[in-house]
Amino acid sequence: MLAYKTTCRVIYGDTDNMGVAYYANYLRWFEMGRTEMFRSLGLTYKTIENKGFFLPVSEVHCKFMTPVQYDDVIGIEVSLDTSVRGGMKFDYKIVSEDGKAVHAKGYTKHAFVDCNGRVTRPPKFLQEVIQNHISKL
Amino acid sequence: MLAYKTTCRVIYGDTDNMGVAYYANYLRWFEMGRTEMFRSLGLTYKTIENKGFFLPVSEVHCKFMTPVQYDDVIGIEVSLDTSVRGGMKFDYKIVSEDGKAVHAKGYTKHAFVDCNGRVTRPPKFLQEVIQNHISKL
Amino acid sequence: MLAYKTTCRVIYGDTDNMGVAYYANYLRWFEMGRTEMFRSLGLTYKTIENKGFFLPVSEVHCKFMTPVQYDDVIGIEVSLDTSVRGGMKFDYKIVSEDGKAVHAKGYTKHAFVDCNGRVTRPPKFLQEVIQNHISKL
Amino acid sequence: MLAYKTTCRVIYGDTDNMGVAYYANYLRWFEMGRTEMFRSLGLTYKTIENKGFFLPVSEVHCKFMTPVQYDDVIGIEVSLDTSVRGGMKFDYKIVSEDGKAVHAKGYTKHAFVDCNGRVTRPPKFLQEVIQNHISKL
Repeated sequence: MLAYKTTCRVIYGDTDNMGVAYYANYLRWFEMGRTEMFRSLGLTYKTIENKGFFLPVSEVHCKFMTPVQYDDVIGIEVSLDTSVRGGMKFDYKIVSEDGKAVHAKGYTKHAFVDCNGRVTRPPKFLQEVIQNHISKL
Repeated sequence: MLAYKTTCRVIYGDTDNMGVAYYANYLRWFEMGRTEMFRSLGLTYKTIENKGFFLPVSEVHCKFMTPVQYDDVIGIEVSLDTSVRGGMKFDYKIVSEDGKAVHAKGYTKHAFVDCNGRVTRPPKFLQEVIQNHISKL
Repeated sequence: MLAYKTTCRVIYGDTDNMGVAYYANYLRWFEMGRTEMFRSLGLTYKTIENKGFFLPVSEVHCKFMTPVQYDDVIGIEVSLDTSVRGGMKFDYKIVSEDGKAVHAKGYTKHAFVDCNGRVTRPPKFLQEVIQNHISKL
Repeated sequence: MLAYKTTCRVIYGDTDNMGVAYYANYLRWFEMGRTEMFRSLGLTYKTIENKGFFLPVSEVHCKFMTPVQYDDVIGIEVSLDTSVRGGMKFDYKIVSEDGKAVHAKGYTKHAFVDCNGRVTRPPKFLQEVIQNHISKL
């Protein structure tokens, strides 16, 4: 399984009137997770775009279990669902700093789109990078 | 069906590097939708909180069909799924100003929580307001 | 004086751990104000961009007097400082719904930039629209 | 001079239609900077709040020099203006990863407020922590 973990500090601007992180901000953390995962593969998402491919989000799902508080360090765990063909699917867990509490679980699905906004096949260079990493696991 | 529609103008701050609305902002629009629906029932969400009940989001789902552009006016359509007991479920559609294009579809689920953060039953005053409106449909 | 007023409802996503609107969101409201002012002149900011001119913010200032609460309707008052040449300067007041309380005061300064990112003179079509409106005051 | 530097990666959610970071997000970075500065002094802002003191922003200023791009790592440099009595003033620079380019410069001013929202004097424990660090410079 291709997986990666990064962390993030919750700031005041992430919280809301209930004193916990606002639900939309989990989607920012999902983005951080998948971006850092690409980077860990040696291929930044920025590079993918520079090569003319885009990965807009086609679907997002998130279950919120326990709230995240101001100034918490959260763990962002992301893994690639390699069973998905055509596009990409990432699974996420937002966990506490020590990894013991799961704050939220979710996924995002992405289509490949070319410069003209047309849905396209996954680019070969990306498939190779992923296959390469999977073969080393 | 309890339903409500409101609108919102997409600002620069809602957009991203791809020139379209960033996916997390759809969750802000979902919030606007359900808040205005409560208001249309004659009971603001703020009042519900002042009475000691909170409705944190326990789950969110969204499918993104066509992107929303800068300066678009979007329609936020929300309906209450009255088949759900215990908590609340809202269904959303983000549509174009003329209602012809569906940009996104999604739902949120919410638990009722009291001042001490304990999950609780739906408050009677809210059930009555909803029943009252349904009976008039 | 060229001036315009619009309003906005404060949502949960705008608030923070202190129970009031997070300070960065005032800059979103400033944007809403100046965008709607352009629209009121019959020339949207989007049109200006489509004609090849951009107005990035070069400076922002804001004084926060009294906090804005969740679910407040705020008034966004904006006026164009017509004494500024070269770029544009907008002055803002964030006021309570009834206009009696001033929550914040600020300004933004903008340079004109062309498609290549070079600072340029104010476009004639914009100067004419503004002169035209000022002459009618 | 009390100073601190931290870094942050610019995500898609920070950018806008112009392909650069949206101006309101600089205020998030200012917050990150001052929060990490407090932490470096051995006293988190959260602890200050837990002791009953709040530091709402009373004023913010920012000059934007060169835009920040998607996926940039930015440096957030913050220093405490120790000449200010009564409240606190922080000066900020948003710089490129190598520190050579200055993207933005700004400051925030803060009042001390107690649990009842009344402006109060700076708490002794905070003054001591700051004096202690200054004496070591």
